[in-house]
Amino acid sequence: MSDSPRPGVLVLNGPNLNRLGVREPDVYGALSLGDIESNLRKHFPDLALEFQQHSGEGALIDALHSADTVETAGVVFNPGGYAHTSVALRDAVSSITTPVLEVHISNIYARESFRHTSLLSAVCTGVITGLGVGGYKLAVQHFAG
Amino acid sequence: MSDSPRPGVLVLNGPNLNRLGVREPDVYGALSLGDIESNLRKHFPDLALEFQQHSGEGALIDALHSADTVETAGVVFNPGGYAHTSVALRDAVSSITTPVLEVHISNIYARESFRHTSLLSAVCTGVITGLGVGGYKLAVQHFAG
Amino acid sequence: MSDSPRPGVLVLNGPNLNRLGVREPDVYGALSLGDIESNLRKHFPDLALEFQQHSGEGALIDALHSADTVETAGVVFNPGGYAHTSVALRDAVSSITTPVLEVHISNIYARESFRHTSLLSAVCTGVITGLGVGGYKLAVQHFAG
Amino acid sequence: MSDSPRPGVLVLNGPNLNRLGVREPDVYGALSLGDIESNLRKHFPDLALEFQQHSGEGALIDALHSADTVETAGVVFNPGGYAHTSVALRDAVSSITTPVLEVHISNIYARESFRHTSLLSAVCTGVITGLGVGGYKLAVQHFAG
Amino acid sequence: MSDSPRPGVLVLNGPNLNRLGVREPDVYGALSLGDIESNLRKHFPDLALEFQQHSGEGALIDALHSADTVETAGVVFNPGGYAHTSVALRDAVSSITTPVLEVHISNIYARESFRHTSLLSAVCTGVITGLGVGGYKLAVQHFAG
Amino acid sequence: MSDSPRPGVLVLNGPNLNRLGVREPDVYGALSLGDIESNLRKHFPDLALEFQQHSGEGALIDALHSADTVETAGVVFNPGGYAHTSVALRDAVSSITTPVLEVHISNIYARESFRHTSLLSAVCTGVITGLGVGGYKLAVQHFAG
Amino acid sequence: MSDSPRPGVLVLNGPNLNRLGVREPDVYGALSLGDIESNLRKHFPDLALEFQQHSGEGALIDALHSADTVETAGVVFNPGGYAHTSVALRDAVSSITTPVLEVHISNIYARESFRHTSLLSAVCTGVITGLGVGGYKLAVQHFAG
Amino acid sequence: MSDSPRPGVLVLNGPNLNRLGVREPDVYGALSLGDIESNLRKHFPDLALEFQQHSGEGALIDALHSADTVETAGVVFNPGGYAHTSVALRDAVSSITTPVLEVHISNIYARESFRHTSLLSAVCTGVITGLGVGGYKLAVQHFAG
Amino acid sequence: MSDSPRPGVLVLNGPNLNRLGVREPDVYGALSLGDIESNLRKHFPDLALEFQQHSGEGALIDALHSADTVETAGVVFNPGGYAHTSVALRDAVSSITTPVLEVHISNIYARESFRHTSLLSAVCTGVITGLGVGGYKLAVQHFAG
Amino acid sequence: MSDSPRPGVLVLNGPNLNRLGVREPDVYGALSLGDIESNLRKHFPDLALEFQQHSGEGALIDALHSADTVETAGVVFNPGGYAHTSVALRDAVSSITTPVLEVHISNIYARESFRHTSLLSAVCTGVITGLGVGGYKLAVQHFAG
Amino acid sequence: MSDSPRPGVLVLNGPNLNRLGVREPDVYGALSLGDIESNLRKHFPDLALEFQQHSGEGALIDALHSADTVETAGVVFNPGGYAHTSVALRDAVSSITTPVLEVHISNIYARESFRHTSLLSAVCTGVITGLGVGGYKLAVQHFAG
Amino acid sequence: MSDSPRPGVLVLNGPNLNRLGVREPDVYGALSLGDIESNLRKHFPDLALEFQQHSGEGALIDALHSADTVETAGVVFNPGGYAHTSVALRDAVSSITTPVLEVHISNIYARESFRHTSLLSAVCTGVITGLGVGGYKLAVQHFAG
Repeated sequence: MSDSPRPGVLVLNGPNLNRLGVREPDVYGALSLGDIESNLRKHFPDLALEFQQHSGEGALIDALHSADTVETAGVVFNPGGYAHTSVALRDAVSSITTPVLEVHISNIYARESFRHTSLLSAVCTGVITGLGVGGYKLAVQHFAG
Repeated sequence: MSDSPRPGVLVLNGPNLNRLGVREPDVYGALSLGDIESNLRKHFPDLALEFQQHSGEGALIDALHSADTVETAGVVFNPGGYAHTSVALRDAVSSITTPVLEVHISNIYARESFRHTSLLSAVCTGVITGLGVGGYKLAVQHFAG
Repeated sequence: MSDSPRPGVLVLNGPNLNRLGVREPDVYGALSLGDIESNLRKHFPDLALEFQQHSGEGALIDALHSADTVETAGVVFNPGGYAHTSVALRDAVSSITTPVLEVHISNIYARESFRHTSLLSAVCTGVITGLGVGGYKLAVQHFAG
Repeated sequence: MSDSPRPGVLVLNGPNLNRLGVREPDVYGALSLGDIESNLRKHFPDLALEFQQHSGEGALIDALHSADTVETAGVVFNPGGYAHTSVALRDAVSSITTPVLEVHISNIYARESFRHTSLLSAVCTGVITGLGVGGYKLAVQHFAG
Repeated sequence: MSDSPRPGVLVLNGPNLNRLGVREPDVYGALSLGDIESNLRKHFPDLALEFQQHSGEGALIDALHSADTVETAGVVFNPGGYAHTSVALRDAVSSITTPVLEVHISNIYARESFRHTSLLSAVCTGVITGLGVGGYKLAVQHFAG
Repeated sequence: MSDSPRPGVLVLNGPNLNRLGVREPDVYGALSLGDIESNLRKHFPDLALEFQQHSGEGALIDALHSADTVETAGVVFNPGGYAHTSVALRDAVSSITTPVLEVHISNIYARESFRHTSLLSAVCTGVITGLGVGGYKLAVQHFAG
Repeated sequence: MSDSPRPGVLVLNGPNLNRLGVREPDVYGALSLGDIESNLRKHFPDLALEFQQHSGEGALIDALHSADTVETAGVVFNPGGYAHTSVALRDAVSSITTPVLEVHISNIYARESFRHTSLLSAVCTGVITGLGVGGYKLAVQHFAG
Repeated sequence: MSDSPRPGVLVLNGPNLNRLGVREPDVYGALSLGDIESNLRKHFPDLALEFQQHSGEGALIDALHSADTVETAGVVFNPGGYAHTSVALRDAVSSITTPVLEVHISNIYARESFRHTSLLSAVCTGVITGLGVGGYKLAVQHFAG
Repeated sequence: MSDSPRPGVLVLNGPNLNRLGVREPDVYGALSLGDIESNLRKHFPDLALEFQQHSGEGALIDALHSADTVETAGVVFNPGGYAHTSVALRDAVSSITTPVLEVHISNIYARESFRHTSLLSAVCTGVITGLGVGGYKLAVQHFAG
Repeated sequence: MSDSPRPGVLVLNGPNLNRLGVREPDVYGALSLGDIESNLRKHFPDLALEFQQHSGEGALIDALHSADTVETAGVVFNPGGYAHTSVALRDAVSSITTPVLEVHISNIYARESFRHTSLLSAVCTGVITGLGVGGYKLAVQHFAG
Repeated sequence: MSDSPRPGVLVLNGPNLNRLGVREPDVYGALSLGDIESNLRKHFPDLALEFQQHSGEGALIDALHSADTVETAGVVFNPGGYAHTSVALRDAVSSITTPVLEVHISNIYARESFRHTSLLSAVCTGVITGLGVGGYKLAVQHFAG
Repeated sequence: MSDSPRPGVLVLNGPNLNRLGVREPDVYGALSLGDIESNLRKHFPDLALEFQQHSGEGALIDALHSADTVETAGVVFNPGGYAHTSVALRDAVSSITTPVLEVHISNIYARESFRHTSLLSAVCTGVITGLGVGGYKLAVQHFAG
């Protein structure tokens, strides 16, 4: 995290989100993660935004731990497929005091039944789903106040 | 709906939400529905906001039907307890072309298991949960563009 | 109910069926409820047909109670989405002696799994599903003898 | 609610209970709701008893809200079939501080399996089932002290 | 199938329906399959009706395949107990283009729970249940237009 | 059972109810079984009340059998934890003609899910739950007429 | 069935039982169906025993129908794997008045879970399982009186 | 067990079977346990028969342990309602080498669903159900050879 | 089976596979069973290939039994819809020593949930699914060595 | 419990554990309960160890109650098969303040699925499973500090 | 992937497959991953084979992404235990256009029930299971054409 | 592993256990992993203790593989949240011959239901849960003999 006086927000993305804009644009839209980062930096110049993407569960757990700092106002977390299977990530969210807001680009409730349940939601502050990449913007704005 | 040139948004609340601010403030916060309406009107002066609250499933269905107009940009809908039990409301959402955004004040995934599933979510545009009454503001902003 | 000497049949429609012909014609067909009424009246001139449509569970319950008369040969009932969720409507069917025939326009068994079970079927005389609005005609004919 | 100095008890009945005494007397007994009211008024002259019956979920929710007064000692509530399906009524019971005692005339545990679970029981003070219309008397007596 | 210019309808009956009229008349009525055939032939003189009954799943599959002809307007199919267990018969219905209408004499939803689900319904045109042997007549009439 | 001309009521308590008033008073209240007995004897001087408490399933079965006498108007039975697990006790209730009224001090529907189902309820006359030790008084009064 | 004055018993075997003695002798024993027939004929000279084995569900249904005669005291039926999957065979047992006793050579409750439930048992007179081919002898003896 | 040279068979009965012949004769028949004992002693004079009946799970466990002797050819065990709930009795059967044959008088598969599964069956030699008290005779005969 | 010295492979097809190439070519491809046979005979000239197709469960069971010969190297078995419902076919596979390789043309795991489980797979040597009619070639090759 | 100044530990064993060392030594080991007692007394000379074994649920409940004394540091409890079925024993553990440590000799998670859940574990201090009779020593040592 | 003109096939192995040949040879065979690689390279000299094995979910996801090239004809993927738990790997397969063929060495349908379902199968081209390491050869051959 | 002559024990900790002592001390206690290591080294000077903690599933699998040496007497493994979701870790435990003892600090059976089942327990030597960090000491002592 930055030592900037601006409040920090970690935008954390899980597995396969590095493929955004490349594949399945009908489900996930045409913007890449890089596009999303650029747009958010422009929209929230007063926030110290940090972006991370990891394919591995362990790396995501470590990233959540590292966001447990005074400077971090919140974590915007799209856990991808781990949302539905990872007790370890849920425990990582519980183990930090920084609030975590879960975001899903697609409407997970309109897809396969195993995507209808997120193990993380109960320990997150809240959840935003189905609003496309616009969900990231609303989520960051929640921490911007 | 108003015939105003401003885009319209219907903020529709279901059963027991008329009790907001009166009971269980630890779960639902201290603001009343009237407070929420005032705040949203101040925040979105360029939208033609309409507010309705109904205890009955039938009245909510009729309200959704009536929002199927060209002027209505979207419906922000907190279905309350009907979210978990009403196929009829789901069908009403499906029967209109106006997009509907489901909002829950509390984090329904952190409460009793029968609240973890919403029959409406799959046919709504998206879902915002757990962000308190702030969820209404983010939802309206989604339609404000 | 009419006090006409012709045998009466109540054609009772539940929530969202007032949207017939307006929305989702690929699922429910292009005819409106009014068209169906006209067609049935032409086809069964010797029956005292009555048509009601209600969005609310309570109004449907009251309608069923009011059909518990000597003159009413039967009720043709399309409960819409309440079929899958309403014990109260089931009890209303049980509480009257007039036979009730459940009708669904679409083939509910070919849709989402929560539509595969109707709480009402067990207490109805029978069920006709999937035959489009033609199902109403066959149902009325069942009571015409 | 009355402004009488006598403690008030609302006896609230849900859908199909207006059919008491008319249909299925082998299950529900031969007394009508009116008979029950007369008997209870005679038996508890020192209580300000109020009787309401509604077919609709919304009207029952409103009735519960209106019983959230200082004068009301308790609500004796027979939710009928809504007991097994209504989260909204459960939330209405939770939203008031007046204690609610759930009553069922028949032994719901000896009937169809979908009647074995009441969504309301967990938030009511207690439950009396299977004692016929005598259950109302015991329930009112509980509030009479 | 006949090469008659009259449109053909195959009335296909599955296992144990050859016992109609002999056993369990309280459940299935007093008419035999032969009686039903006679009545339908009288009622629909303009149709080329064919009747088959088979105890074996394989023979029923073969019968469905043989009805995949231009002359056959539809199949009225009472699959008996196979309705609840046979994926192979479902596949046979899917493998032909002739529409198949499923008929059950008794109200299968009012009987044992394993009879509440028919594997065939989702791929049939529609389903008629609980109307006794009268269900055959309504079903044939559906194809008569 | 006594050969007294007064009608007899057996108040039968199952496992751990001998701990009443000693442990978990927040759940079960501060009165001991002895206190309850004293209060009931004072309140119902015209009944031949008998009190038994047993930790073992077998002893409770034997007690139920022994209550199958002409003099016994009813059994008030708090089966404790056996309610949720004992088919044998259910069979014992079925094997006698004396009516049995099941009582639970706490609201079992508001506790762990394995307490939501009582195997005994279906064969008892009725059930009273959640009214504290006051439930015993209402139950005895039911038999007092 | 024979027209012999001796009471008849049909010993009916389902699929794969023609493999008895050839394969998996550790599960099913070393005797063939022919051996069993010889032994039973010797043991019960006063009965008109008939033996049938069929691989197909349809043939077994027909065999059950044909045993619905006055001369047949009972059917000893080992349905093999169809026990766990065939509603049609269950209906065939229900459709005849001759009592049917279900026999399984192995202890089906000690094998895979899908063998723990027999759809036929509820409509058979009784069930004998796990006693090896000796189960046939006990079953025939039951009908011998 | 007796030290008689005759092979011993323990006929062990569980809870409520001491009520045989007194209650629910339509389900369990009119014979008492004493009648059954007399009949079996007459029928099997060459066996050292021992009869025990216990209401408690612990006493039945002890009885099974005590039958683990060289002289005991087998145990005929009707566990009553414990069949469906007792892992401890199952373990007791497993803990002895004497074969145990489970007997139920009624057809447990035709009753409530919780009676369809016996925890004991998998570790017993076999099971005989639904043949009334005649089941005891067949079971003893199994051990008589 | 042939008495040829070439190793034999039985290619056994179940219900509706005689419809290959005629119907639902988007699911099952455009080749008929005859085409598949021709292709395989050309590709494996050194094997004694035998082809059978049956609609009935019984006939398939008999075919499996008949393949229990020394000359048969293996059975390539596409059980069609019976895969998901037939314990009897599973037992037939278990009852022979010839290895059986289960083949499905379509990817059954990507279709309706009742197709996700095959009762036969556990007792087959292996399973090949989703590779179209090419799956037959790979399966025969497995036995060709 | 002893009035010795040494801290007391009750080692309580449930049904069938009196068979230790006699039967199924491959599952439970070769030591008897007496051997275990001797070894523990030697190993923990500074503790006032008490040993009880009961077959009945009621006796175990009473034993737990009697351990609710100041002198008892803890209870080492092997509930045997009751672990998986007894709500009453769970309530007994809850009803005392003395900590209870659940011990199982075998690895219950590697056995039948009904052994995977213990109703007692949630209210015990902790659980030790699968370590053979060595589990008792570790458990007592936990209370020895 | 190689820039060779030969078509490429990635043989990707998941967790614990580096233990092949070392442990549990009765389940997985005696060949190591190195042996398998050598054999496949000999057998398919015209393919550009690449071999990777990873223990971590993230590394496998990255490997799948990297195979999304024009040169790669297909991926032969043995996901090991992740097959049954990983939505993230399923999403990775969906996110690339290269076809993926799932391979399991053992017959997963004949093992513990949690191995019967693979989350990946529905999005793979097909599945080969139970054919030992020979399954790899058939899978590669599928892509060799 | 060390080549020391002292027997080795690997104490392996999974995700989030590096947060011990920092967060949620009410659930997991106030000691850090470092404190636990110090205490264990002092308590077991004769063992070659090795400590590892990993957030990733893959790294834990590799650690288990590396413990498959002659010098390692056992692994004390706290898998954290992976216990409830990881088949791959279960397979890693199965793939080594070194015994693994599963430890959980908190009583997982008293927490959320998804924590009640550990996929690893069945293949571990045993399990110790709920005894706080003291569980590690008992577990190491088990291997110390």
